[in-house]
Amino acid sequence: MLAQEFRHTRRVHFQDTDLAGIIHFSNYFRYMEETETEFLYALGAQSGEADFHEWFLSPRVGVQAEFLRPTRFGDKLDVMLSVEHMGRSSIGFRFRFLRGDELVARGSMRAVYVGHNENGGLRSTAIPDKLRPLLEPYLVKE
Amino acid sequence: MLAQEFRHTRRVHFQDTDLAGIIHFSNYFRYMEETETEFLYALGAQSGEADFHEWFLSPRVGVQAEFLRPTRFGDKLDVMLSVEHMGRSSIGFRFRFLRGDELVARGSMRAVYVGHNENGGLRSTAIPDKLRPLLEPYLVKE
Amino acid sequence: MLAQEFRHTRRVHFQDTDLAGIIHFSNYFRYMEETETEFLYALGAQSGEADFHEWFLSPRVGVQAEFLRPTRFGDKLDVMLSVEHMGRSSIGFRFRFLRGDELVARGSMRAVYVGHNENGGLRSTAIPDKLRPLLEPYLVKE
Amino acid sequence: MLAQEFRHTRRVHFQDTDLAGIIHFSNYFRYMEETETEFLYALGAQSGEADFHEWFLSPRVGVQAEFLRPTRFGDKLDVMLSVEHMGRSSIGFRFRFLRGDELVARGSMRAVYVGHNENGGLRSTAIPDKLRPLLEPYLVKE
Repeated sequence: MLAQEFRHTRRVHFQDTDLAGIIHFSNYFRYMEETETEFLYALGAQSGEADFHEWFLSPRVGVQAEFLRPTRFGDKLDVMLSVEHMGRSSIGFRFRFLRGDELVARGSMRAVYVGHNENGGLRSTAIPDKLRPLLEPYLVKE
Repeated sequence: MLAQEFRHTRRVHFQDTDLAGIIHFSNYFRYMEETETEFLYALGAQSGEADFHEWFLSPRVGVQAEFLRPTRFGDKLDVMLSVEHMGRSSIGFRFRFLRGDELVARGSMRAVYVGHNENGGLRSTAIPDKLRPLLEPYLVKE
Repeated sequence: MLAQEFRHTRRVHFQDTDLAGIIHFSNYFRYMEETETEFLYALGAQSGEADFHEWFLSPRVGVQAEFLRPTRFGDKLDVMLSVEHMGRSSIGFRFRFLRGDELVARGSMRAVYVGHNENGGLRSTAIPDKLRPLLEPYLVKE
Repeated sequence: MLAQEFRHTRRVHFQDTDLAGIIHFSNYFRYMEETETEFLYALGAQSGEADFHEWFLSPRVGVQAEFLRPTRFGDKLDVMLSVEHMGRSSIGFRFRFLRGDELVARGSMRAVYVGHNENGGLRSTAIPDKLRPLLEPYLVKE
């Protein structure tokens, strides 16, 4: 059953292309993160330090992507985000990149929510309570 | 007398920050170019190879910027573009970066329109005829 | 049995960090590609258009990475490349990121060699004949 | 009279090119900063937090560059750094980009040394005492 997806639309920019005339693959990861950020703002995150630590401080532990079709300068991409995994502190996002109806790439990103422990280091921490129910509708049931 | 300005709004993204917690200055130049691209699309440029060669193939010959206030993750910036110079083949864009009413940075970028000559090299060429009148309203009169 | 590994050493640069004080994950993919390029130059590739088309024109079809330890500004990383797969036209590189003796990240990248067909499009083509034997010593036997 | 220059050699990487087949101009600023970092390490800066705050925490207040010749994938560039200005807290670096004997670009970057004040904000501070004499040989006398 398909989950709800969040859509972020963005143009492939000139600086994202390489001399082969197509978007350099490393930029797909920038687009993924940009989409995650816009998603969290859409869910209610605010700018500012408090929300940053609560909503955004989630180092990535793994990412992957497959590139199915070349994309070019000026293409408009819809980046579709859903949640493919939600643990106590870890979260996995799934991304589909569409140009119109055409799937041009897909990928996923796993992150772990962290907080500062007493000596200033980082330790994994639970996904924020207020965030969890907001993520539910986007969770892929398989 | 102030010229018309084109506005492109964008968020400062996580990946654009550095460990000092502020946007890394090199990204302002990415924002400038992104704004120029959106400007040309707004004027009527189409995706595709023909328009690319006519509207976008303008290597930069010089750029500069001043950074007046630090900008941070989540800030929304309005990038305001005007034309400060228009020669036969060269064009100079001026950029003001606003966070609300506050001017946080400003910069400029000079480019030269080029075409391919018979041996495949590049030579400067006139600003496209259909582009010139569209740029006029954005030209700063001083 | 371990294959030979190619080593590329590089510093984590300021612009590669983000506001969490660690390297932004998207840069690992830049480091991977940089390492592949230095590897091909070490094997004998020359700058210039001919070698570019023969050695380098291999669009990526998939990449993945795992981030095991945070890396910081000023860290020196040894990026270790080996070949984990070699097909007719496809190649898979494996990367290990070491900070001293410590494995901080690992990843892989799959690419397909392509050439231009008669209508200017791209089609997959065999790995160049002179490249294949040079890659052999780096092939991981499992 | 010419000052001593620090040299940092680096290759133009694939990901630094754009679809016009040349290096995207925004990367020159990355190369500048990379060169400044290598320069400070060569002068004796160490990795780690203390040296970071003393040697590296200098937000940029302005940068500019001129692009004289296109540079391409695989080109080796020598980035030559000298000091064109040294005030109480401000410093100006000058950069020349050479491909062999050919000057392909030049630029400059102004920065201000800062420290944290009592409320955690940033204020300009003097260039570190141990850094100033080390910079002297690189100061351009005009």
